[in-house]
Amino acid sequence: MSFRADFEELCRIGADPAGGWTRPAFSPAENAAHDWLRRKGRAAGLAVRSDAIGNTILRLGGEGPAILIGSHLDTVPNGGALDGALGVLAGLEVARRLAAEGAAGAPVEVIAFRDEEGRFGPFTGSRAMAGLHDPEALRNARAPEGESLSDAARAAGFAAVNAPRDWAEVALWLELHIEQGPVLEATGLPLGIVTSIAGQERLSVRFMGRADHAGTAPMHLRRDALAGAARFATGFRDLILAQGDPDLRGTIGVVKISPNQGNVVPATATLGLEIRATDGDALPGVRDAVEALAGAVAGEEGLELRLRRLWSDRPVPMDARLRRVLGDAAATLGVPALALPSGANHDTGIIGRIVPAAMLFVPSTGGRSHCPEEATPVEQIEAAIDVLHLAVQRLRGAPS
Amino acid sequence: MSFRADFEELCRIGADPAGGWTRPAFSPAENAAHDWLRRKGRAAGLAVRSDAIGNTILRLGGEGPAILIGSHLDTVPNGGALDGALGVLAGLEVARRLAAEGAAGAPVEVIAFRDEEGRFGPFTGSRAMAGLHDPEALRNARAPEGESLSDAARAAGFAAVNAPRDWAEVALWLELHIEQGPVLEATGLPLGIVTSIAGQERLSVRFMGRADHAGTAPMHLRRDALAGAARFATGFRDLILAQGDPDLRGTIGVVKISPNQGNVVPATATLGLEIRATDGDALPGVRDAVEALAGAVAGEEGLELRLRRLWSDRPVPMDARLRRVLGDAAATLGVPALALPSGANHDTGIIGRIVPAAMLFVPSTGGRSHCPEEATPVEQIEAAIDVLHLAVQRLRGAPS
Repeated sequence: MSFRADFEELCRIGADPAGGWTRPAFSPAENAAHDWLRRKGRAAGLAVRSDAIGNTILRLGGEGPAILIGSHLDTVPNGGALDGALGVLAGLEVARRLAAEGAAGAPVEVIAFRDEEGRFGPFTGSRAMAGLHDPEALRNARAPEGESLSDAARAAGFAAVNAPRDWAEVALWLELHIEQGPVLEATGLPLGIVTSIAGQERLSVRFMGRADHAGTAPMHLRRDALAGAARFATGFRDLILAQGDPDLRGTIGVVKISPNQGNVVPATATLGLEIRATDGDALPGVRDAVEALAGAVAGEEGLELRLRRLWSDRPVPMDARLRRVLGDAAATLGVPALALPSGANHDTGIIGRIVPAAMLFVPSTGGRSHCPEEATPVEQIEAAIDVLHLAVQRLRGAPS
Repeated sequence: MSFRADFEELCRIGADPAGGWTRPAFSPAENAAHDWLRRKGRAAGLAVRSDAIGNTILRLGGEGPAILIGSHLDTVPNGGALDGALGVLAGLEVARRLAAEGAAGAPVEVIAFRDEEGRFGPFTGSRAMAGLHDPEALRNARAPEGESLSDAARAAGFAAVNAPRDWAEVALWLELHIEQGPVLEATGLPLGIVTSIAGQERLSVRFMGRADHAGTAPMHLRRDALAGAARFATGFRDLILAQGDPDLRGTIGVVKISPNQGNVVPATATLGLEIRATDGDALPGVRDAVEALAGAVAGEEGLELRLRRLWSDRPVPMDARLRRVLGDAAATLGVPALALPSGANHDTGIIGRIVPAAMLFVPSTGGRSHCPEEATPVEQIEAAIDVLHLAVQRLRGAPS
């Protein structure tokens, strides 16, 4: 077997007639992908187990704390073939090679987490292994279309529970993932070594004015919620750019206005925004400045303001030694690599808060992801797996 | 009978348990309101007829071209009691007084148009009387929820057809309406004499960029449709205000962004906007400047732009002599009146393109309209009806 053969087989699971792959967490398609992985693990002579929530773990035995390699097998609806799957298949291929080599060293585990895409909430599987869930909230978690995690997990033979492991028995975590952005392709380099996973702040910003007849209300008597939202949106981008930090990102992805009718001045405008940064010290300050900007605009426009903080995560810096080991392996194999931050969050962002962690990126063609067109040249994938393999060979001798 | 008694009776028709009044065009409630009006006309000794599309006409006989007074009986869902109904009831009251007085003069007609609120398209009834409809489009017109005008009109005993009348037999048109805005209340004056009905331009402005991952796409590589739309929205208001015309209004009432997802840079942002002006010469120039602004912003932001002109209406100036007659009548009765434009369009905006027309406003409490709270102090309504009555008495002697 090889990565290419594994990938062909896995791509048959959850292929969506409407395009791309649809393997939602705990759906029959995701369950089938985990079943497939367990079969592949057994065929490779690895010990196979699942934890209480259904994360799949393939283990190559050895001495001392384990080296974990993994990612996830679920996808967004009509998503791509590589997001998540690549990291699991890379782990499988590395473990298979190591098993065939028969060398002694630290144990190696290949882990496929459940629900990285957050059908039942962000990072359901890796947060369960980290023991981070509020048990009651987890029991009551539901997918947007209504299915409960409890029912979905039970149908797959598992339960909606934390599944913490003994982290003293874990040396480190590694993940190979597609970049999901344009940077590697733009620089022409085939490999990225992640410096840090960005932290993020998510805010809901609602401007509240007054609905008025678009024909009869003079301009100076209006309290136009959209006018405030538009000024804020422009000021928000200016503020992000003014920080001069190339890794800082600010995005307004959601806009909802009411009543959203052609001849009525908007009464409310609600913006969903997020700020991401790899410089964790800067993030709270930027968030505060954004909130102050919203307050200033609301004041000037005679609008009421409702600010809600929806989510707050500090950046997760990657482990310096592991970055060096990955960089040395790439250099040994002649694979040029770029150090770059990860703007997207990953299971590494959860596990990397507990044990030393590092991450490799391969380029995303056209920067595309979460869509059927998601792609990476297969030679680049194979080169990355070779780098991962060499790095793990070296780490098995000195896992921590 | 009196206005107050008529109003009480009419308010029983289409009162909505969910609040306000719901008399959609050609619904049983609107049909019942027209039936009620016909009964009131016969009781007042007026000749009663309907035209082919179902507009109701009550006529007090006389010599020469007729004086038309009217408005409409349909409402928006959960609308107010006065919008439209007031003008019909005022006409009924004036015609009843004139019939009782028995004086000679020009014929007077009270007209209740169908579908002023545009359930089947803008101003269905008055445009039918003006003969403005494309016959096939009218036959195929449907309400947003799917019912066809042809079926709805047939069920009421009418047809989805133009119903043009001989306009040589019409001297002039008068309409009393609530202001639907805050100006009269703010000035404290009980009566408005409309100078002009605003013209309007409606545009759809779509900025098209590229969906990108909010975490992975660096700020400088983005083509963020919302960023362009926000800059345009702010510039649009600045442009409107910079004209220095207090009767000019610019409103962005509709915003739709796609994919409208928190972690995705918006790929498209579509704005529905309108510009209203009483200065007809200025309107095309402002529209052109708005379109140029959209083009400039799209260019600077690296976005594609799709502009569509959805609607274009020139302002309708009110007849100078009729304004003077109404002003003189108000002065005679000691009712202080304010000359003001109508930002909203009305049936007068259709009929006023064919015959001399004028319009009276009474204040709207809190500027509110199209809602259950729509109100005007009854003494102000009665004063306006007295002014209308006196003006029509005078006009009957010299109708044109």
